[in-house]
This record gives sequence, structure tokens and C-alpha cells, in this order.
Amino acid sequence: MAFYKEMTVRRSYMCRGDHGADLLGEITGFCRDRGITLGRVEALGALVRAALGYYNQDTRQYETLEFDEHLEIANLVGNVSLKDGEPIVHAHVTLANDRGIAYGGHLAPGCEIFACEFVVQEFDGPQLDRGLDEQTGLPLWNEE
Amino acid sequence: MAFYKEMTVRRSYMCRGDHGADLLGEITGFCRDRGITLGRVEALGALVRAALGYYNQDTRQYETLEFDEHLEIANLVGNVSLKDGEPIVHAHVTLANDRGIAYGGHLAPGCEIFACEFVVQEFDGPQLDRGLDEQTGLPLWNEE
Amino acid sequence: MAFYKEMTVRRSYMCRGDHGADLLGEITGFCRDRGITLGRVEALGALVRAALGYYNQDTRQYETLEFDEHLEIANLVGNVSLKDGEPIVHAHVTLANDRGIAYGGHLAPGCEIFACEFVVQEFDGPQLDRGLDEQTGLPLWNEE
Repeated sequence: MAFYKEMTVRRSYMCRGDHGADLLGEITGFCRDRGITLGRVEALGALVRAALGYYNQDTRQYETLEFDEHLEIANLVGNVSLKDGEPIVHAHVTLANDRGIAYGGHLAPGCEIFACEFVVQEFDGPQLDRGLDEQTGLPLWNEE
Repeated sequence: MAFYKEMTVRRSYMCRGDHGADLLGEITGFCRDRGITLGRVEALGALVRAALGYYNQDTRQYETLEFDEHLEIANLVGNVSLKDGEPIVHAHVTLANDRGIAYGGHLAPGCEIFACEFVVQEFDGPQLDRGLDEQTGLPLWNEE
Repeated sequence: MAFYKEMTVRRSYMCRGDHGADLLGEITGFCRDRGITLGRVEALGALVRAALGYYNQDTRQYETLEFDEHLEIANLVGNVSLKDGEPIVHAHVTLANDRGIAYGGHLAPGCEIFACEFVVQEFDGPQLDRGLDEQTGLPLWNEE
């Protein structure tokens, strides 16, 4: 059975990321500046270059895939919660190159924004905190 | 002209799917347990293995594509409505392998969760029910 | 720092696009008919054929990629704002073919709907208007 917490939507933000900024840093910085500790995020746009994470389920390490090309952000989906007392954005992205070929993975530092429009929706509800999950090796939401 | 029904957002849920569970079963079970019959859903995470549906528009049959590898869930988007009186989740997913290559399609049974974070937002409004659409052969929302 | 405007969610709509209609035209027409000038949109479904835009960051021109095949809409993410006083939908899509191979890009005219379910969530808040951004050559949200 899925573990869950019940929320209500507080505020929504329509945002334009800065040209040249790091995509993960930009969204995380926005949440920290606004004191957002719970929510959902989505985005579209384009990148100058990109880095994606792939979690190796056997070695329990993230592998980084680098893309030194201009890519569309076909999609970004993510959430905001706390880790070590600080807002953390966990997001996955789908990218596409000049032939439309799509790539996907964990949003890692190293995605340079060409243009980006993102929506953050803040939730009101019991806080979710990330801690090490022994079963997967990932920082998942604590169940207590 | 698009057919539509007007809703308001009731409750939102931030959820963590169970390691080893079936992704479609997990989200559907969550909605049934909570009595959610209208809403939207999104997710990210990783799978141990996957199955995607592709609807063949000529034969009007779903073809199943199986992936016996570890994949990131780059995105999941879907909705909740009723079919034969039971909550049904209709979702599409984008997956990515260890080289970042993306695959997509209809979320079918057979996607085993490694880790998954999903958001369900329940809507208040006139119920939508699925019935056979003659034009496409698909179980679409009835217009009455 | 990201530029942003703060919103609240007004109404949500669960919609079924018309078989044979143009996907971008269908969503845009829905927003214009309902007087929606601010919001977010998401969709899933299938297309009879597709056209995607890729923005060439060097030439500052959109290049169009055409797909003369039946494709799943694995995801659509977008927003609604104003351009020249009219509601405009800016969306990116991820598509997938009969082998599950995914393609992505800017939603362009030329995507013919086979079946489509979309959600539009209208926002209440300060209006966002698009105007030419000198740095990228794109019609981005004006910061004033």
C-alpha cells in the first residue's frame, strides 16, 4: 500500500527562469526564497546543455549522462519536500534534440537554461522529509 | 469543439509507491481506497521492468511492449474517472534507460516499482464515466 | 533569479478533444471560448500524425519536424497566457511510436487528434503577457 500525506493547494506560481542559470538551481532557489517546503513543479523550455542522472539499481549510485547540445525541455515533473531541514526539489525531465529524439532521466545540476517556464504549486499539509531508504539506497520520504 | 466538465480541486495527495508493487495497480488501488473517482495524477521514479501499451489505430487493439531492464520514470501523466462503476486510472508514461534513451506509451500492468513518488489531485464536479467510443474503439468519456 | 507571478487555482476542466481536430487548435480554442487567459494544461492521448517544433538557438528560428505515423501522446505540458491580447497556449509534447520510441518538442500546428484527454486549470492572478525577448528571440513573458 502506498504511503501518503493529504494536502491542499495553497499558492501557485508561474515563473520564468533566467537565461544562463542552472535549471535545478533556479527552481530550488525559487522555493527556498519563497519558503516553499511542500509542493509540485512542472516546466517546459529549452537548454543550452544538459546533464541527466540515471540511478543504477545494482550499484546504488547515480550515473551522470552529459549532453553537449541544444535541447528542448519536452517535460519536467517534480516535487518539493525537505531534506536535512532544507527545501529540496526532486524532478525528472524529458529532453529532445534537433531531430526530435527524446532523452529522459533525473534532473541533475548542469542543465543550463536557454529559456524556461515553470509552475510551482505550494501545498499546505503535514511536512514530508527525505531520509535514506535502506531498500533502495535513495533519499525517500520518511514514513513516520 | 472539445467536450468538457468543470471541476474544482478538492484534496491533493503526495504519495510514495511501494517497492515491488505494480505501478498502475498501486495508483488505482490508492484511488479506490480513498474513494477518489475524479482527478489528475502525475509521477516520477524508477522501475525494475516495464510494459507499455501502444494502441493500433487500424486494428483497434492495444499492443504490449515489454522492457526487461531498469528504467527511470521520466514522467507519468493521467486522470481518474469511472468505468463500470469503478475508479479507473488512465495514464501515459515516459521512461528512460541507462543511456537516457526515452520510451513512451500507455501505462499497462507489468511496470514493477523500484521507487515512485506520485501526486493525486482529487476533483469535485460532475462525474465522468467511460464507455465504448465507436469512432476510435476506445473507452472514452461519455458525452451525456 | 526567476521572475514570477503569484496565482491561485480557479476552475479546473477535464476535457475530451475532438477526433480529427488539431491538438494545439483544440486546446487554444477551448481557452478562448471559456475566456481563460492564465493557467496550466496537460494532456495524454494519441495522434494520427504530428508536427513538432525545435527552436534553433543559433538561427533563432523554429524548425518543424513532421511525423507521418500514428503516435501516442506520452505527455503534454503547457501554460496559457496572453499574446497581442489573445489567449495563447504554449505547450511541449512527448510522443511515442509503435515500438515505444519517444520524440519530443514544441507543440506545433499539424498534430491531428485520434483521441485526447486534457486538463486545463485556470489561474486567478496578475496577467502574464508575451512579448519579444531580445536575448533569446522568443515571445517570453514580459517582466513589467
